[in-house]
Amino acid sequence: MQSEPILQDLIQALRCLPGVGQKSAQRMAFHLLERDRQGAFKLAQSLAEAVDKIGHCSVCQTLSSADICGLCSDDRRDQQLLCIVETPADVMAIDGATSFKGVYFVLNGRLSPLDGLGPADIGLDKLVDRLKMGVIKEIILATNPTVEGEATAHYISEMAKKYSVRATRIAHGVPFGGELEYIDSGTLSHAFSGRSEV
Amino acid sequence: MQSEPILQDLIQALRCLPGVGQKSAQRMAFHLLERDRQGAFKLAQSLAEAVDKIGHCSVCQTLSSADICGLCSDDRRDQQLLCIVETPADVMAIDGATSFKGVYFVLNGRLSPLDGLGPADIGLDKLVDRLKMGVIKEIILATNPTVEGEATAHYISEMAKKYSVRATRIAHGVPFGGELEYIDSGTLSHAFSGRSEV
Ligand SMILES: [Zn+2]
Ligand SMILES: [Zn+2]
Repeated sequence: MQSEPILQDLIQALRCLPGVGQKSAQRMAFHLLERDRQGAFKLAQSLAEAVDKIGHCSVCQTLSSADICGLCSDDRRDQQLLCIVETPADVMAIDGATSFKGVYFVLNGRLSPLDGLGPADIGLDKLVDRLKMGVIKEIILATNPTVEGEATAHYISEMAKKYSVRATRIAHGVPFGGELEYIDSGTLSHAFSGRSEV
Repeated sequence: MQSEPILQDLIQALRCLPGVGQKSAQRMAFHLLERDRQGAFKLAQSLAEAVDKIGHCSVCQTLSSADICGLCSDDRRDQQLLCIVETPADVMAIDGATSFKGVYFVLNGRLSPLDGLGPADIGLDKLVDRLKMGVIKEIILATNPTVEGEATAHYISEMAKKYSVRATRIAHGVPFGGELEYIDSGTLSHAFSGRSEV
Protein backbone atom coordinates (compact mmCIF):
# COMPACT_ATOMS: atom_id res chain seq x y z
CA MET A 1 0.00 0.00 0.00
CA GLN A 2 2.88 2.32 -0.96
CA SER A 3 0.04 4.00 -2.80
CA GLU A 4 -1.69 5.42 0.28
CA PRO A 5 0.42 8.30 1.58
CA ILE A 6 -2.01 9.33 4.34
CA LEU A 7 -1.76 5.86 5.85
CA GLN A 8 2.04 5.85 5.50
CA ASP A 9 2.12 9.26 7.19
CA LEU A 10 0.11 7.94 10.10
CA ILE A 11 2.38 4.90 10.49
CA GLN A 12 5.44 7.17 10.53
CA ALA A 13 3.80 9.57 13.00
CA LEU A 14 3.00 6.70 15.40
CA ARG A 15 6.69 5.85 15.57
CA CYS A 16 7.27 8.95 17.71
CA LEU A 17 5.79 6.91 20.57
CA PRO A 18 8.44 5.30 22.83
CA GLY A 19 8.95 1.58 22.14
CA VAL A 20 6.93 1.64 18.92
CA GLY A 21 8.77 0.36 15.83
CA GLN A 22 7.57 -0.08 12.25
CA LYS A 23 5.58 -3.29 12.87
CA SER A 24 3.81 -1.97 15.98
CA ALA A 25 3.04 1.31 14.23
CA GLN A 26 1.43 -0.58 11.32
CA ARG A 27 -0.60 -2.69 13.71
CA MET A 28 -1.77 0.44 15.56
CA ALA A 29 -2.72 2.28 12.37
CA PHE A 30 -4.78 -0.62 11.03
CA HIS A 31 -6.40 -1.22 14.40
CA LEU A 32 -7.46 2.41 14.68
CA LEU A 33 -8.75 2.73 11.11
CA GLU A 34 -10.44 -0.66 10.94
CA ARG A 35 -11.75 -1.04 14.46
CA ASP A 36 -11.59 2.15 16.53
CA ARG A 37 -12.05 5.35 14.58
CA GLN A 38 -13.75 6.99 17.53
CA GLY A 39 -10.70 6.22 19.68
CA ALA A 40 -8.42 7.62 16.98
CA PHE A 41 -10.46 10.81 16.73
CA LYS A 42 -10.45 11.25 20.50
CA LEU A 43 -6.69 10.63 20.62
CA ALA A 44 -6.08 13.26 17.92
CA GLN A 45 -8.08 15.79 19.95
CA SER A 46 -6.42 14.90 23.27
CA LEU A 47 -2.95 15.17 21.76
CA ALA A 48 -3.69 18.53 20.15
CA GLU A 49 -5.21 19.88 23.36
CA ALA A 50 -2.35 18.61 25.55
CA VAL A 51 0.34 20.08 23.27
CA ASP A 52 -1.55 23.37 23.12
CA LYS A 53 -2.48 23.77 26.77
CA ILE A 54 0.01 21.88 28.93
CA GLY A 55 3.12 23.79 29.94
CA HIS A 56 5.10 23.78 33.18
CA CYS A 57 4.03 25.03 36.60
CA SER A 58 5.85 28.30 37.33
CA VAL A 59 6.44 27.19 40.93
CA CYS A 60 7.39 23.48 40.80
CA GLN A 61 8.04 22.96 37.05
CA THR A 62 5.78 19.91 36.73
CA LEU A 63 3.42 19.58 33.74
CA SER A 64 0.40 21.84 34.17
CA SER A 65 -2.23 23.59 32.11
CA ALA A 66 -2.44 26.36 34.70
CA ASP A 67 0.33 28.82 35.57
CA ILE A 68 0.44 27.28 39.07
CA CYS A 69 -0.36 23.54 39.18
CA GLY A 70 -3.04 21.85 41.26
CA LEU A 71 -0.49 20.46 43.71
CA CYS A 72 1.22 23.79 44.41
CA SER A 73 -2.09 25.63 44.76
CA ASP A 74 -3.67 23.00 47.03
CA ASP A 75 -3.62 24.66 50.46
CA ARG A 76 -4.21 21.34 52.24
CA ARG A 77 -0.66 20.37 51.26
CA ASP A 78 2.27 21.18 53.54
CA GLN A 79 4.43 23.87 51.93
CA GLN A 80 7.19 23.18 54.50
CA LEU A 81 7.98 19.76 52.99
CA LEU A 82 9.54 19.87 49.54
CA CYS A 83 10.18 16.71 47.52
CA ILE A 84 12.75 17.03 44.73
CA VAL A 85 12.37 14.78 41.69
CA GLU A 86 13.82 14.57 38.20
CA THR A 87 10.63 14.42 36.11
CA PRO A 88 6.86 15.08 36.20
CA ALA A 89 6.38 11.28 35.85
CA ASP A 90 8.14 10.90 39.22
CA VAL A 91 5.65 13.34 40.78
CA MET A 92 2.81 11.14 39.53
CA ALA A 93 4.53 7.95 40.74
CA ILE A 94 5.18 9.32 44.26
CA ASP A 95 1.78 10.94 44.57
CA GLY A 96 0.11 7.68 43.59
CA ALA A 97 2.25 5.39 45.77
CA THR A 98 2.91 7.29 48.98
CA SER A 99 0.97 9.32 51.49
CA PHE A 100 3.28 12.31 51.02
CA LYS A 101 1.29 15.51 51.47
CA GLY A 102 3.97 18.13 50.94
CA VAL A 103 4.84 19.81 47.64
CA TYR A 104 7.26 19.03 44.81
CA PHE A 105 10.04 20.58 42.81
CA VAL A 106 10.82 19.05 39.41
CA LEU A 107 14.40 19.43 38.18
CA ASN A 108 15.02 19.83 34.49
CA GLY A 109 16.95 16.53 34.53
CA ARG A 110 20.05 16.08 36.71
CA LEU A 111 23.51 17.53 37.05
CA SER A 112 25.71 16.11 34.33
CA PRO A 113 28.99 17.99 33.87
CA LEU A 114 29.91 15.79 30.89
CA ASP A 115 26.79 16.95 29.05
CA GLY A 116 27.40 20.53 30.18
CA LEU A 117 24.43 20.50 32.57
CA GLY A 118 25.21 22.70 35.57
CA PRO A 119 23.04 23.88 38.51
CA ALA A 120 21.27 26.65 36.57
CA ASP A 121 20.43 24.31 33.67
CA ILE A 122 18.40 22.03 35.92
CA GLY A 123 16.60 24.91 37.65
CA LEU A 124 18.55 25.03 40.92
CA ASP A 125 18.61 28.86 40.86
CA LYS A 126 14.83 28.68 41.23
CA LEU A 127 15.24 26.29 44.14
CA VAL A 128 17.64 28.70 45.86
CA ASP A 129 15.02 31.48 45.57
CA ARG A 130 12.56 29.17 47.25
CA LEU A 131 14.95 28.23 50.07
CA LYS A 132 15.59 31.93 50.70
CA MET A 133 11.88 32.50 51.34
CA GLY A 134 12.28 30.51 54.57
CA VAL A 135 9.05 28.49 54.33
CA ILE A 136 10.69 25.13 53.59
CA LYS A 137 11.73 23.08 56.63
CA GLU A 138 12.68 19.79 54.94
CA ILE A 139 13.86 18.83 51.51
CA ILE A 140 13.24 15.20 50.52
CA LEU A 141 15.66 14.15 47.80
CA ALA A 142 13.92 11.69 45.46
CA THR A 143 16.23 11.86 42.47
CA ASN A 144 16.94 8.50 40.80
CA PRO A 145 19.59 6.30 42.48
CA THR A 146 21.95 6.61 39.53
CA VAL A 147 25.40 8.21 39.59
CA GLU A 148 24.07 11.56 38.32
CA GLY A 149 20.98 11.35 40.51
CA GLU A 150 23.14 10.78 43.60
CA ALA A 151 25.49 13.62 42.67
CA THR A 152 22.51 15.92 42.17
CA ALA A 153 21.04 14.89 45.55
CA HIS A 154 24.41 15.54 47.21
CA TYR A 155 24.72 18.97 45.59
CA ILE A 156 21.24 19.98 46.73
CA SER A 157 21.84 18.70 50.27
CA GLU A 158 24.89 21.01 50.50
CA MET A 159 22.72 23.86 49.23
CA ALA A 160 20.09 23.09 51.87
CA LYS A 161 22.69 23.17 54.66
CA LYS A 162 23.61 26.70 53.68
CA TYR A 163 20.02 27.77 54.33
CA SER A 164 19.72 25.59 57.47
CA VAL A 165 17.09 23.39 55.86
CA ARG A 166 16.97 19.69 56.74
CA ALA A 167 17.68 17.42 53.74
CA THR A 168 16.67 13.74 53.61
CA ARG A 169 17.19 11.10 50.95
CA ILE A 170 14.60 8.42 50.16
CA ALA A 171 15.79 4.97 51.27
CA HIS A 172 17.58 2.68 48.87
CA GLY A 173 14.79 0.20 48.60
CA VAL A 174 14.86 1.37 45.01
CA PRO A 175 17.32 -0.85 43.10
CA PHE A 176 20.53 0.92 42.12
CA GLY A 177 20.57 2.00 38.46
CA GLY A 178 16.77 1.75 38.26
CA GLU A 179 14.43 4.44 37.01
CA LEU A 180 12.13 5.68 39.77
CA GLU A 181 9.18 5.99 37.45
CA TYR A 182 9.04 2.21 36.82
CA ILE A 183 9.38 1.00 40.42
CA ASP A 184 6.42 -0.86 41.93
CA SER A 185 4.45 1.27 44.34
CA GLY A 186 5.16 -0.91 47.41
CA THR A 187 8.94 -0.50 47.08
CA LEU A 188 8.56 3.18 46.34
CA SER A 189 6.30 3.75 49.33
CA HIS A 190 8.74 1.87 51.59
CA ALA A 191 11.72 3.84 50.29
CA PHE A 192 9.83 7.04 50.88
CA SER A 193 8.90 6.43 54.49
CA GLY A 194 12.40 5.03 55.25
CA ARG A 195 14.16 8.22 54.14
CA SER A 196 17.22 9.26 56.16
CA GLU A 197 19.18 12.40 56.97
CA VAL A 198 21.99 13.24 54.51
CA MET B 1 -1.29 14.58 39.38
CA GLN B 2 -4.99 13.87 39.78
CA SER B 3 -5.12 17.62 39.46
CA GLU B 4 -4.32 17.79 35.74
CA PRO B 5 -7.37 16.56 33.76
CA ILE B 6 -5.91 17.31 30.32
CA LEU B 7 -2.97 15.00 31.05
CA GLN B 8 -5.29 12.31 32.46
CA ASP B 9 -7.43 12.62 29.30
CA LEU B 10 -4.39 12.10 27.11
CA ILE B 11 -3.32 9.01 29.11
CA GLN B 12 -6.81 7.54 28.76
CA ALA B 13 -6.94 8.35 25.03
CA LEU B 14 -3.58 6.60 24.44
CA ARG B 15 -5.06 3.39 25.84
CA CYS B 16 -7.11 2.97 22.66
CA LEU B 17 -3.85 1.79 21.06
CA PRO B 18 -3.55 -2.02 20.92
CA GLY B 19 -1.22 -3.44 23.59
CA VAL B 20 -1.04 -0.16 25.53
CA GLY B 21 -2.05 -0.38 29.21
CA GLN B 22 -2.08 2.29 31.92
CA LYS B 23 1.69 2.25 32.57
CA SER B 24 2.64 2.42 28.88
CA ALA B 25 0.11 5.17 28.27
CA GLN B 26 1.61 7.23 31.11
CA ARG B 27 5.10 6.68 29.75
CA MET B 28 3.97 7.76 26.27
CA ALA B 29 2.19 10.88 27.53
CA PHE B 30 5.20 12.05 29.55
CA HIS B 31 7.58 11.24 26.72
CA LEU B 32 5.55 13.27 24.24
CA LEU B 33 5.02 16.28 26.53
CA GLU B 34 8.52 16.36 27.99
CA ARG B 35 10.62 15.31 25.02
CA ASP B 36 8.73 15.28 21.72
CA ARG B 37 6.01 17.89 21.41
CA GLN B 38 6.63 18.21 17.70
CA GLY B 39 6.05 14.46 17.29
CA ALA B 40 2.87 14.71 19.36
CA PHE B 41 1.60 17.60 17.24
CA LYS B 42 2.36 15.73 14.02
CA LEU B 43 0.66 12.60 15.36
CA ALA B 44 -2.47 14.58 16.26
CA GLN B 45 -2.61 15.96 12.72
CA SER B 46 -1.95 12.59 11.05
CA LEU B 47 -4.64 10.88 13.11
CA ALA B 48 -7.21 13.57 12.38
CA GLU B 49 -6.39 13.51 8.67
CA ALA B 50 -6.48 9.70 8.46
CA VAL B 51 -9.83 9.44 10.27
CA ASP B 52 -11.25 12.20 8.08
CA LYS B 53 -9.93 11.08 4.69
CA ILE B 54 -9.33 7.33 4.71
CA GLY B 55 -12.29 5.16 3.81
CA HIS B 56 -12.48 1.93 1.84
CA CYS B 57 -11.78 1.39 -1.87
CA SER B 58 -15.09 0.86 -3.66
CA VAL B 59 -13.54 -1.93 -5.76
CA CYS B 60 -11.35 -3.98 -3.37
CA GLN B 61 -12.44 -2.66 0.06
CA THR B 62 -8.91 -1.94 1.29
CA LEU B 63 -8.18 1.31 3.15
CA SER B 64 -7.98 4.20 0.71
CA SER B 65 -8.36 7.98 0.63
CA ALA B 66 -9.56 7.81 -2.98
CA ASP B 67 -12.78 6.17 -4.18
CA ILE B 68 -10.64 3.64 -6.05
CA CYS B 69 -7.32 2.76 -4.37
CA GLY B 70 -3.85 3.04 -5.88
CA LEU B 71 -3.58 -0.74 -6.34
CA CYS B 72 -6.88 -1.12 -8.20
CA SER B 73 -6.22 1.87 -10.41
CA ASP B 74 -2.63 0.87 -11.26
CA ASP B 75 -2.90 -0.39 -14.87
CA ARG B 76 0.50 -2.12 -14.65
CA ARG B 77 -1.16 -4.66 -12.33
CA ASP B 78 -2.80 -7.81 -13.71
CA GLN B 79 -6.58 -7.55 -13.25
CA GLN B 80 -6.92 -11.26 -14.12
CA LEU B 81 -5.24 -12.34 -10.85
CA LEU B 82 -7.28 -11.64 -7.74
CA CYS B 83 -5.88 -12.24 -4.25
CA ILE B 84 -8.47 -12.57 -1.47
CA VAL B 85 -7.46 -11.50 2.03
CA GLU B 86 -9.18 -10.81 5.33
CA THR B 87 -7.82 -7.36 6.15
CA PRO B 88 -6.07 -4.31 4.64
CA ALA B 89 -3.05 -5.20 6.81
CA ASP B 90 -2.78 -8.48 4.86
CA VAL B 91 -2.69 -6.51 1.59
CA MET B 92 0.27 -4.55 2.93
CA ALA B 93 2.00 -7.71 4.19
CA ILE B 94 1.63 -9.54 0.85
CA ASP B 95 2.52 -6.53 -1.24
CA GLY B 96 5.67 -5.99 0.81
CA ALA B 97 6.77 -9.65 0.93
CA THR B 98 5.92 -11.14 -2.46
CA SER B 99 6.27 -10.22 -6.10
CA PHE B 100 2.52 -10.58 -6.66
CA LYS B 101 1.42 -8.10 -9.31
CA GLY B 102 -2.30 -8.85 -9.51
CA VAL B 103 -5.05 -7.10 -7.57
CA TYR B 104 -6.71 -7.70 -4.19
CA PHE B 105 -10.10 -8.15 -2.65
CA VAL B 106 -10.43 -7.51 1.09
CA LEU B 107 -13.19 -9.40 2.88
CA ASN B 108 -14.95 -7.75 5.79
CA GLY B 109 -13.63 -10.49 8.08
CA ARG B 110 -14.45 -14.16 7.48
CA LEU B 111 -17.48 -16.43 7.42
CA SER B 112 -18.52 -17.18 10.97
CA PRO B 113 -22.01 -18.72 11.22
CA LEU B 114 -21.78 -18.67 15.03
CA ASP B 115 -21.38 -14.88 14.99
CA GLY B 116 -24.07 -14.58 12.33
CA LEU B 117 -21.59 -13.60 9.62
CA GLY B 118 -22.79 -14.95 6.26
CA PRO B 119 -21.53 -14.41 2.69
CA ALA B 120 -23.15 -10.99 2.22
CA ASP B 121 -21.77 -9.71 5.54
CA ILE B 122 -18.19 -10.24 4.44
CA GLY B 123 -18.78 -8.72 0.98
CA LEU B 124 -19.03 -11.89 -1.12
CA ASP B 125 -21.97 -10.45 -3.12
CA LYS B 126 -19.50 -7.84 -4.38
CA LEU B 127 -17.07 -10.61 -5.28
CA VAL B 128 -19.78 -12.44 -7.26
CA ASP B 129 -20.42 -9.27 -9.28
CA ARG B 130 -16.72 -9.17 -10.07
CA LEU B 131 -16.58 -12.84 -11.10
CA LYS B 132 -19.55 -12.25 -13.41
CA MET B 133 -17.63 -9.57 -15.30
CA GLY B 134 -15.39 -12.36 -16.66
CA VAL B 135 -12.05 -10.56 -16.30
CA ILE B 136 -10.70 -12.66 -13.44
CA LYS B 137 -8.87 -15.87 -14.44
CA GLU B 138 -7.45 -16.93 -11.07
CA ILE B 139 -8.45 -16.35 -7.49
CA ILE B 140 -5.65 -16.73 -4.92
CA LEU B 141 -7.09 -17.50 -1.50
CA ALA B 142 -4.91 -15.87 1.16
CA THR B 143 -7.29 -15.96 4.11
CA ASN B 144 -5.68 -16.88 7.44
CA PRO B 145 -5.07 -20.60 8.07
CA THR B 146 -7.60 -20.69 10.92
CA VAL B 147 -10.81 -22.73 11.01
CA GLU B 148 -12.94 -19.79 9.81
CA GLY B 149 -10.31 -18.70 7.29
CA GLU B 150 -10.21 -22.20 5.79
CA ALA B 151 -14.01 -22.40 5.67
CA THR B 152 -14.15 -19.01 3.97
CA ALA B 153 -11.50 -20.09 1.43
CA HIS B 154 -13.46 -23.28 0.73
CA TYR B 155 -16.71 -21.36 0.25
CA ILE B 156 -15.08 -18.94 -2.20
CA SER B 157 -13.41 -21.77 -4.13
CA GLU B 158 -16.87 -23.31 -4.68
CA MET B 159 -18.13 -19.93 -5.84
CA ALA B 160 -15.21 -19.63 -8.26
CA LYS B 161 -15.95 -23.05 -9.78
CA LYS B 162 -19.46 -21.90 -10.66
CA TYR B 163 -17.95 -19.12 -12.78
CA SER B 164 -15.21 -21.40 -14.15
CA VAL B 165 -12.48 -19.39 -12.45
CA ARG B 166 -9.37 -21.18 -11.19
CA ALA B 167 -8.98 -20.98 -7.39
CA THR B 168 -5.65 -21.52 -5.60
CA ARG B 169 -4.78 -21.50 -1.91
CA ILE B 170 -1.47 -20.15 -0.58
CA ALA B 171 0.75 -22.95 0.78
CA HIS B 172 0.68 -23.86 4.43
CA GLY B 173 4.12 -22.59 5.17
CA VAL B 174 2.12 -20.25 7.39
CA PRO B 175 1.78 -21.93 10.81
CA PHE B 176 -1.72 -23.13 11.58
CA GLY B 177 -3.63 -20.81 13.88
CA GLY B 178 -1.27 -17.95 13.04
CA GLU B 179 -2.27 -14.48 11.90
CA LEU B 180 -1.03 -13.76 8.39
CA GLU B 181 -0.21 -10.17 9.18
CA TYR B 182 2.51 -11.17 11.68
CA ILE B 183 4.30 -13.81 9.61
CA ASP B 184 7.90 -13.10 8.55
CA SER B 185 8.15 -12.09 4.92
CA GLY B 186 10.28 -15.11 3.85
CA THR B 187 7.65 -17.62 5.00
CA LEU B 188 4.89 -15.54 3.51
CA SER B 189 6.64 -15.22 0.16
CA HIS B 190 7.30 -18.99 0.10
CA ALA B 191 3.68 -19.78 0.95
CA PHE B 192 2.54 -17.44 -1.77
CA SER B 193 4.61 -18.90 -4.60
CA GLY B 194 3.83 -22.48 -3.43
CA ARG B 195 0.08 -21.98 -3.76
CA SER B 196 -1.93 -24.96 -5.03
CA GLU B 197 -5.21 -25.69 -6.80
CA VAL B 198 -8.18 -26.19 -4.43
ZN1 LIG C 1 3.41 23.23 40.78
ZN1 LIG D 1 -8.84 -1.08 -4.40
